[in-house]
Amino acid sequence: MPPLQQTGIPLYHQLVEIFSERLASGEWAPGSLIPTELALCAQYGVSRGPVRQALERLVQEGRLTRKQGKGTTVLPPKIESNLGGLYSFTHLIEQKGLRHTAQTLAFTTITAAGSLARRLALQAGAPVFEIRRLRLADGEPLILETIHIATAVCPGLTAADLAADSLYRLMTTRYDLTLARAKQYFEPALADEYEAAHLQLKPGAPVLLLHNLTLTPAAAPVVLSRAILRGDRVRYLVELTLPLPVP
Amino acid sequence: MPPLQQTGIPLYHQLVEIFSERLASGEWAPGSLIPTELALCAQYGVSRGPVRQALERLVQEGRLTRKQGKGTTVLPPKIESNLGGLYSFTHLIEQKGLRHTAQTLAFTTITAAGSLARRLALQAGAPVFEIRRLRLADGEPLILETIHIATAVCPGLTAADLAADSLYRLMTTRYDLTLARAKQYFEPALADEYEAAHLQLKPGAPVLLLHNLTLTPAAAPVVLSRAILRGDRVRYLVELTLPLPVP
Repeated sequence: MPPLQQTGIPLYHQLVEIFSERLASGEWAPGSLIPTELALCAQYGVSRGPVRQALERLVQEGRLTRKQGKGTTVLPPKIESNLGGLYSFTHLIEQKGLRHTAQTLAFTTITAAGSLARRLALQAGAPVFEIRRLRLADGEPLILETIHIATAVCPGLTAADLAADSLYRLMTTRYDLTLARAKQYFEPALADEYEAAHLQLKPGAPVLLLHNLTLTPAAAPVVLSRAILRGDRVRYLVELTLPLPVP
Repeated sequence: MPPLQQTGIPLYHQLVEIFSERLASGEWAPGSLIPTELALCAQYGVSRGPVRQALERLVQEGRLTRKQGKGTTVLPPKIESNLGGLYSFTHLIEQKGLRHTAQTLAFTTITAAGSLARRLALQAGAPVFEIRRLRLADGEPLILETIHIATAVCPGLTAADLAADSLYRLMTTRYDLTLARAKQYFEPALADEYEAAHLQLKPGAPVLLLHNLTLTPAAAPVVLSRAILRGDRVRYLVELTLPLPVP
């Protein structure tokens, strides 16, 4: 057990690192109970405040969960989205052996204007599907997304189509589209009440905000989407090939 | 101006989308003041609550800022980190025409144990540099990072070296290492008090938590790091080449 350092780094922050280590090493295994707060205080010779603060942090990060009267349990690892996999979220979920479902919350046709028209390279007034839906893995809501796609790209698309299949699968099979590239912007955010309610989170919980633009080989933008991903259940893996562009 | 819909989507959430559109289109330009809350209420025929809630959300996302008695101003775009660029953060900052500096908060040698030893493929007890530092752009703190690197990889490395140059530049030039790949895991998180104090945020502000492992061409792990990125100032761009792996 490494001793707590006197380096100006707060105790609870050092405890987060120590506890993270016990999780990473598998000593605290998924599904098992960790020692009580009092036991941890004794083990590290610290008071209850920093121990509680450190555990709270790991609860927020989705690594531990607390049940009233039952103690603190280690959560299973997060669902990991590899580069390129995310936007076939259907595929990602199925690959993990989980059952993927989608709930369409709203399916409407709006007219493109402003930056929506500009980003999808449409004339102002062009009809655009606006789709709001929730993606679930084994019934657990993971992603809340809003998709914009010109009706001309997927004529006749209905909410029922999306309940049965992935949008990308439909685009490549039924609509014979080739998708060449996607630009995805990631930002951390806090769930607002609407998002929290759909994702079964507390308002203010950490979420990943993902803006996506999908392009054809001719660089025509075809799908614009904004997704809110549960921070406690999804993490995102990017694998880079180096050398990095160092001057 | 699109009318507010009666679709069960809360008003403030619709307002966030409308205001985002005014920001994206450039109508609300960086540095300019946006209309007052009262003016926005009148414009959209809504009460003050949802307008305030929507503006609060955009403040949290780092797109607007409020100054007491001065109104609400549009912030400049976030510093954008492209795939492959992040971990030459020095290069990223310099490329944006900003002055990059790093503040070393702690530079110590520890002995590898547990998952740290395992992840860096070291014998237990091997000496490892533990470096905590803050990366700044034009004096503004953006990233708080903790780096672990075996002393055998960079013998003689000092805190002074890191003040003067990028770690990756030092590794490739002075230590003649070739870096082949990096695995990066992204998760949203909330800044704790320690992190918030260093990054000049409020505790609980959204941050991106980035775990990085850098490997040599022989797949030997050489650098392990954990970074906290300010959510209001950095966003992360990933460009994917498709087709996606749809079955």
